Amino acid sequence: MRYLLFFLLVGSQVSAQSFQEDSVVIRRMADDILNQGTAYENLRTLCKEAPARLSGSANAAKAVEIARKMLQDAGADTVYLQPCMVPHWVRGPKEEADLLMAGGKNISLNVCALGNSVGTAPAGVTAPVIEVQSFDELDKLGKKEIEGKIVFLNYPMKQTLINTFAAYGDAVVYRVQGPSRSAKYGAVGFLLRTLSTSLNDYPHTGTTRYDTTLPKIPAFAVSTNDAEKLSHFLKMKMVAKLSMKAGCRMLPDTPSFNVIGELRGVEHPDEIITVGGHLDSWDLAEGAQDDGAGIVQSIEVLRTIKASGIRPARTIRAVMFMNEENGGRGGQAYAAAAAKDGLHYIFGLESDAGGFSPRGFSIQAQGLRVMRPWEPLLEPYGACEWKEGGGGADVNPLTSVKAVVGELQPDSQRYFDFHHAANDVFDAVNRRELLLGAVNMAGLVYLVSKYGL
Amino acid sequence: MRYLLFFLLVGSQVSAQSFQEDSVVIRRMADDILNQGTAYENLRTLCKEAPARLSGSANAAKAVEIARKMLQDAGADTVYLQPCMVPHWVRGPKEEADLLMAGGKNISLNVCALGNSVGTAPAGVTAPVIEVQSFDELDKLGKKEIEGKIVFLNYPMKQTLINTFAAYGDAVVYRVQGPSRSAKYGAVGFLLRTLSTSLNDYPHTGTTRYDTTLPKIPAFAVSTNDAEKLSHFLKMKMVAKLSMKAGCRMLPDTPSFNVIGELRGVEHPDEIITVGGHLDSWDLAEGAQDDGAGIVQSIEVLRTIKASGIRPARTIRAVMFMNEENGGRGGQAYAAAAAKDGLHYIFGLESDAGGFSPRGFSIQAQGLRVMRPWEPLLEPYGACEWKEGGGGADVNPLTSVKAVVGELQPDSQRYFDFHHAANDVFDAVNRRELLLGAVNMAGLVYLVSKYGL
Repeated sequence: MRYLLFFLLVGSQVSAQSFQEDSVVIRRMADDILNQGTAYENLRTLCKEAPARLSGSANAAKAVEIARKMLQDAGADTVYLQPCMVPHWVRGPKEEADLLMAGGKNISLNVCALGNSVGTAPAGVTAPVIEVQSFDELDKLGKKEIEGKIVFLNYPMKQTLINTFAAYGDAVVYRVQGPSRSAKYGAVGFLLRTLSTSLNDYPHTGTTRYDTTLPKIPAFAVSTNDAEKLSHFLKMKMVAKLSMKAGCRMLPDTPSFNVIGELRGVEHPDEIITVGGHLDSWDLAEGAQDDGAGIVQSIEVLRTIKASGIRPARTIRAVMFMNEENGGRGGQAYAAAAAKDGLHYIFGLESDAGGFSPRGFSIQAQGLRVMRPWEPLLEPYGACEWKEGGGGADVNPLTSVKAVVGELQPDSQRYFDFHHAANDVFDAVNRRELLLGAVNMAGLVYLVSKYGL
Repeated sequence: MRYLLFFLLVGSQVSAQSFQEDSVVIRRMADDILNQGTAYENLRTLCKEAPARLSGSANAAKAVEIARKMLQDAGADTVYLQPCMVPHWVRGPKEEADLLMAGGKNISLNVCALGNSVGTAPAGVTAPVIEVQSFDELDKLGKKEIEGKIVFLNYPMKQTLINTFAAYGDAVVYRVQGPSRSAKYGAVGFLLRTLSTSLNDYPHTGTTRYDTTLPKIPAFAVSTNDAEKLSHFLKMKMVAKLSMKAGCRMLPDTPSFNVIGELRGVEHPDEIITVGGHLDSWDLAEGAQDDGAGIVQSIEVLRTIKASGIRPARTIRAVMFMNEENGGRGGQAYAAAAAKDGLHYIFGLESDAGGFSPRGFSIQAQGLRVMRPWEPLLEPYGACEWKEGGGGADVNPLTSVKAVVGELQPDSQRYFDFHHAANDVFDAVNRRELLLGAVNMAGLVYLVSKYGL
């Protein structure tokens, strides 16, 4: 029925013959990727040789060189670096958090500082803990109850939201705004229940943002298991104080780069299709799902188009964005350059939701109208759910130059088991799931390169 | 558009009001399962307390008691055991396989005996190895080249088939028929490249079947990594002989049981909906993906229907089938009883493709025609691909009593990483993926219980 629907909807836009030709081309790329794809081995290299590649770190610089080499090996016509200044936050020694129990015992918690957090004084900060589950609760307690305490924000991600990114979207405000909203009432520290859909011992980091008009207080995440434990202890009135210690700090901005590989279009070289992910990762992780997967998939798109003998009508750029995690400077720099270079940025596709089995794409409405007839071409490869939506954080700034943006939508169920945590390692990625994502991305990029937008 | 299509297609069959009511009921079950579901903890119990529950084993008997208790706890009106005789194959001590290299060195391979294989003499079998990649090749070599040798059948699963079950279907004939087809030419042993889509060190077992007119030769699987290594050594002419040793043997058939829990229908108690998985597992594994997942999901269906206050119009049975892996006797016994009891078996739904994210259902054509209008009701929960197809091995015999059969279709990419191997353990299953499968099964079973077929 899908096929029938296809021809009914498409009418004269794409002929049955083109459909047949395109399906052969996409099949050829799929076979190439599944049999000879390099994405999985590239991911191993990136994760093992440049783990913890947070912006400004030595490993981020190493990742730039690794990506440059991979793009050259993939057969790009040109590979170049695009400079951008990035924040440079460093964690310092491993953070500590100890519960001082009413009975005198000490209990260690699995914690990490949130990204961009300030550190504590060398002796740490020690204070009573107060648990809240929302900002409403925090506001109700106010200065009287909060001042001088550490706020423990224990908001679990909603299990009932089927797409885990919706649950993340619902909860992430506590990580981003929690420290300053607590500082407003005189809190001296902030402890966030890790944003994860699973119960385990890994604390997940991620960006927090300080309101510069308020004191900057140290901000930690605690693992979901320990959040449950702490909450229980608090209910039992077993906790005297919490002691937090961190040596993290923000250094001055430092130069870094986006890495760009290009296949020049033969008919419309000035029409640019951008496909990318982000090269930086949090420092606790190998950055496999977030977002080594998107990096190696984007390189794979370029590789397979070249290897399949396609000479694209429009220019295809694989872009490895820097600094998605704690600043977004790479995406901003790319869009700023795009605003000046006189080229036409028609489409920006990102993969930054993990290397899981592809389910579909989210694409802005004006692009989706054009692309919808192509959906049956990718359905055999698993990306059968095409929905109206935005792109990833790195390509979204391209809307300022009128590009259509979109994002690969892999299955979301496992993503927040790994996101920003030490278990986001190469082994967390399944080879076939990763490669199938690349197959679908290559198919969509090929179609845009042929038909335009 | 899906919703529009829905109302266009459905017309008077299901009113907009029913759609609304049903979507509320399914949402309630989904929330219940995702927040309070017991399937994940049940899976932990089953895997940890009764791993390696191969038919006839003490752990299989233990699993029967565990399942009975779980069905009672889930709120079944009745729980009972249905007797069946099952094959009783035992592996004995861990198998050994050593390459005797031309230079005199010995190299061990990661192997296991295939299920139902005969053992070797206590001293093992030692012979030259000959590699083939297909039965055609085997037939061409014939008795002259094969006699007195061990056949190494090195056929990799096809990476280019997107659904890995299609690749398994393509390759499994070598496991099932390989030993006898080799014995026909005088082979003294058989070594199968493990049926897996990944490269690793786990040998995967699984049933082989002997042609009783031919000598029964010992049949092993070798891990995919070691298959690659062996093939390389053979090409280099580095291998003198292979020595295989196994103590496995088939014992006489032994009594066992299907475990059945029932919610009695209030309007049509004689119309039976069967939802199940198989309770037995291979002896090397905890049987988490295969098929602990299907067991705990089926129990969850019953539990949530009861917990949600639904009094089903038709009778719902959660059936834990015994002996799917090496005989199928449980499924046969259930269908044989169904042929005699005067009840109407309208639908049999199986989950035996792993506890991965649900993608859809395969359902026989005559059932799919009725069910198609329900598809949008489950689309929010991920099972959006409904295809014509059969059921699982345990419910398929119900076609003899005219039941419609079907199967949950989870994402297939990771399944053959674990199938029949020692890494099929509880930790290989993701909680949310497992529960979402149960949500979709519960939705479909509820709809059949309400509208019939």
